[in-house]
Amino acid sequence: MIGRLNHVAIAVPDLQAAVAQYENTLGAKVRPAQDEPDHGVTVVFIDLPNTKIELLYPLGDDSPIKGFLDKNPSGGIHHMCFEVEDILAARDKLKSEGARVLGSGEPRIGAHGKPVLFLHPKDFNGCLIELEQV
Amino acid sequence: MIGRLNHVAIAVPDLQAAVAQYENTLGAKVRPAQDEPDHGVTVVFIDLPNTKIELLYPLGDDSPIKGFLDKNPSGGIHHMCFEVEDILAARDKLKSEGARVLGSGEPRIGAHGKPVLFLHPKDFNGCLIELEQV
Repeated sequence: MIGRLNHVAIAVPDLQAAVAQYENTLGAKVRPAQDEPDHGVTVVFIDLPNTKIELLYPLGDDSPIKGFLDKNPSGGIHHMCFEVEDILAARDKLKSEGARVLGSGEPRIGAHGKPVLFLHPKDFNGCLIELEQV
Repeated sequence: MIGRLNHVAIAVPDLQAAVAQYENTLGAKVRPAQDEPDHGVTVVFIDLPNTKIELLYPLGDDSPIKGFLDKNPSGGIHHMCFEVEDILAARDKLKSEGARVLGSGEPRIGAHGKPVLFLHPKDFNGCLIELEQV
């Protein structure tokens, strides 16, 4: 069911410093920052030859990653995103096997403009998993 | 400098359950488990179309992931591994820019039989980064 790893997301406490580190120290190709007010984050995608890193920085007072950064002041790996062909079929299969979908359970439009869902970390080895329909 | 994302490693508290979940619930291609006594882990690689997931389970009393699982009983994303062409050149560049390399600072042979190094999470947004020479 799951296809490509679309990205690994890293919550960072200092977006400029993280961008400079990936661009200069690690020598990766960094795209311009984009604000995602619907998701409460500013995101920066880093293109690797086979997948992407997504830097996440809080946007607004209600950012869903604020709590994560409070618990992890240095930052940390926040989630990983797997591509699926049919997000509703994937959701229904996972739910029928007991996995919990976060929020309303209905897909939202993610940072790539495509439908996404998040799965409960407790049901997936402590990992927050995003599914994105491609 | 960094190339492909070689894998994302997930520490899991129940290897059999995690294997079954990735194979059956998530429908991914799971390879047989391999014991890595030099690293204190049993690993299971999961092949995605563009990269791999590495499930990690403690092996022996001195496993380096035991502490991680004590702190994260459900498991969690443990590290991500970037490929580099020349691990000594990468190490020297990173060290010259102030990043700390874990352990002796000399590459060890990793689960793929290739030289690897780990970088200090505090220097990389709270993320444990493995470099593997390919």
